[in-house]
Amino acid sequence: MALSTQPYKGARDFYPEDKRLQKYIFGKLRETVERWGYEEYDAPILEPLDLYLAKTGDEIVNEQTYAFEDRGGRKVAIRPEMTPTVSRMVAARRQELAYPLRWYSIPNLWRYERPQHGRLREHWQLNVDMFGVDRLEADMELIQIADAIMRNFGARRSMFKIRLNNRRFVDYVLQKVLQFDHVQSYSVAKLIDRMHKMERDTFVTQLDALCTPSQREGGTVERLLKILSAQRISSLPEELQSHETVRELQVALERLHDLGLIHVEFDPTLMRGFDYYTGLVFEVFDTHPDNNRSLFGGGRYDGLVGLFGVEPVPTVGFGMGDVTLGDFLKVHELLPTLHPETRVYAALIGNVAKDAQRVIQDLRKEGVNVAVDISGRSIDKQFKTADKKGIPYVLVIGEQELSSEQFTLKDLRTGNEEKHSIERIATIVQDHRHADDEL
Amino acid sequence: MALSTQPYKGARDFYPEDKRLQKYIFGKLRETVERWGYEEYDAPILEPLDLYLAKTGDEIVNEQTYAFEDRGGRKVAIRPEMTPTVSRMVAARRQELAYPLRWYSIPNLWRYERPQHGRLREHWQLNVDMFGVDRLEADMELIQIADAIMRNFGARRSMFKIRLNNRRFVDYVLQKVLQFDHVQSYSVAKLIDRMHKMERDTFVTQLDALCTPSQREGGTVERLLKILSAQRISSLPEELQSHETVRELQVALERLHDLGLIHVEFDPTLMRGFDYYTGLVFEVFDTHPDNNRSLFGGGRYDGLVGLFGVEPVPTVGFGMGDVTLGDFLKVHELLPTLHPETRVYAALIGNVAKDAQRVIQDLRKEGVNVAVDISGRSIDKQFKTADKKGIPYVLVIGEQELSSEQFTLKDLRTGNEEKHSIERIATIVQDHRHADDEL
Repeated sequence: MALSTQPYKGARDFYPEDKRLQKYIFGKLRETVERWGYEEYDAPILEPLDLYLAKTGDEIVNEQTYAFEDRGGRKVAIRPEMTPTVSRMVAARRQELAYPLRWYSIPNLWRYERPQHGRLREHWQLNVDMFGVDRLEADMELIQIADAIMRNFGARRSMFKIRLNNRRFVDYVLQKVLQFDHVQSYSVAKLIDRMHKMERDTFVTQLDALCTPSQREGGTVERLLKILSAQRISSLPEELQSHETVRELQVALERLHDLGLIHVEFDPTLMRGFDYYTGLVFEVFDTHPDNNRSLFGGGRYDGLVGLFGVEPVPTVGFGMGDVTLGDFLKVHELLPTLHPETRVYAALIGNVAKDAQRVIQDLRKEGVNVAVDISGRSIDKQFKTADKKGIPYVLVIGEQELSSEQFTLKDLRTGNEEKHSIERIATIVQDHRHADDEL
Repeated sequence: MALSTQPYKGARDFYPEDKRLQKYIFGKLRETVERWGYEEYDAPILEPLDLYLAKTGDEIVNEQTYAFEDRGGRKVAIRPEMTPTVSRMVAARRQELAYPLRWYSIPNLWRYERPQHGRLREHWQLNVDMFGVDRLEADMELIQIADAIMRNFGARRSMFKIRLNNRRFVDYVLQKVLQFDHVQSYSVAKLIDRMHKMERDTFVTQLDALCTPSQREGGTVERLLKILSAQRISSLPEELQSHETVRELQVALERLHDLGLIHVEFDPTLMRGFDYYTGLVFEVFDTHPDNNRSLFGGGRYDGLVGLFGVEPVPTVGFGMGDVTLGDFLKVHELLPTLHPETRVYAALIGNVAKDAQRVIQDLRKEGVNVAVDISGRSIDKQFKTADKKGIPYVLVIGEQELSSEQFTLKDLRTGNEEKHSIERIATIVQDHRHADDEL
């Protein structure tokens, strides 16, 4: 029986045109974060399973991780996220590293999603983290970078908004103001995290079920609903507005608005899944009616590095997936037309493969990417191949051209044909490359 | 108990300085192969296990593959090599693709090596393949590219040699000339593949054991040893020299020598492990006395795409691992000094974080990568941090600088300090960047 040509379910093949798009996206991501002084790191896609048992959300380790035993009996996982890995790497060199540490990576991550959802099981995710600064300036910078990335893709600030909340504010409300015990607080936070995916009635019923009778009678549900409905800090109950965790939010919002990030909004319902967040959290949200959804987010997680037995390191970071980002760019029509890396297709007339080499090598030495048709087919078919590949120029090389040292260059986009020396041709196709890039 | 900070055994963390080296190497690889008209593709690191059961060497599937069952009971493998994957992708679009197809990829590959060997379990491997051309020109091009990559890293042709053989010649010798049956031929070929890793006596004894008594008496061992000892085609027994498979080798060698690749040599002992090769095979070999070993190689494999139930596609390709290449570059002292992506470290005096933003953003808009110290520490400590990070310039921003719009720029490599406007500073650090790149 013939082998299947399909990739593993829920995973993607990248044909050159797909890879081109990915390279464009990754290039923009790298450009932006490097502009802010971040340096790239990487790590193995396999990690000891233990790494994920500590502080990630339970669901991920238990149901969604690709975990198995290696041939030596070690339990390993294909990484579902990068945060535990980067925390491990920082912990390993806790003393030697120079803080503030600004690191980024674009790892491939895997999660086992049930096939019927039609959801992908792998994606690539930009991870941006700053280690060693517990001041608000660090949180501000990460939010500014999230904004800068979007804008570097050409997005206007009306196309997305940034939601902001404070995990310490949530803890304060649940534990101190509403007097939920530790287990209740955890369950209520998880419920709020899912509230936008359910009917309001369902949410209220489930919230009610988490309360004790005396909490119910004391109006706990109503008080929480009121807090969660606040769309700005000034709509919060007055006694909360002066609390230190709200002041922090207030200062952050003001500073970001001052910097022109007027699309940052307070959102008391923002939880950001993972249990490890310890301070401000934020989420970039698509405002397009056809793609009204969370794009990516992050926040402060000061506790992870310390899990490795070293002194804790304050950390702020976010992760941004390529699939979600790609959807955003598509729906807002922000994707440029991309061309293949190859600029020139050399079409050969007759048996000149050997002599044509010299000419082609001269062109390559000038920095031109040249593919040569060595199929021995008719010149017509060679032109068609170049066209099908989307290569902009065809260079014709036959015996006559080789002896006169004048070669026909055809621009397949305009149909224009000119005869030139190789030096001139190198200049023409290079100049046009820069012109194309600017379009 | 604290979590371990170690990566999974046999796998590598890439701290920024390691990643920088990898980016340099990958950049050179991409530059070279794109110059020859190759386009990048990619595929999932997980593949259905079936993909490897067909034509790869047995050892790899049985003992060295990371294989497991996913939560849906599907058998999957972490890819140990890229060739089956790229064949699958070509087969899936057999009809639509425009040949000759020139593709490359730099995938991460995994093999389970026993830990006691101290060998790595993962590496990154450049894969370069041409599909759709059965003519010798295709084989020539791949060997030229292998040579061009080495030279693009600054290697001279005395630093490495390229061994060339023909799998069809090996088959002819074993099956027709020496009359080994199919099973014997397979075993003898495998033995020859390992011959340089064993004593000559051991090789002869094992070869002898594979022969029938009548083969032994007929001098089969001696005849094979004579053929294997030939260091050039003219040293082969005369009756073999005119055989079509040897003529092909002869033509290839002559053409490559004509193109200046004088370091390509015939080597009848070259087998190149994998069973799927069907024609010319080659191997790049380090000539350095401290690293005298095979670096990488490839050859023609015309049968793989056809395994997917479509018409076969002639293919030539090679794979080049990052670890082996890195060792070569190190031992030949071909690695340049690499600098961090960040050009400027902004040190802040006093409480100016907010006002400094404007200046720093101006610099970034000019294309300068700037990290800012938001730690609030003494200026002395900020300078030390920049130095530790290897960032070449420190820009000092305090209230005085902000009001005069003249900023101190210190070059940490020369100790030189100058005061300039931000526009001038952008020019200085950009100009020097280009100068550094040329060093």
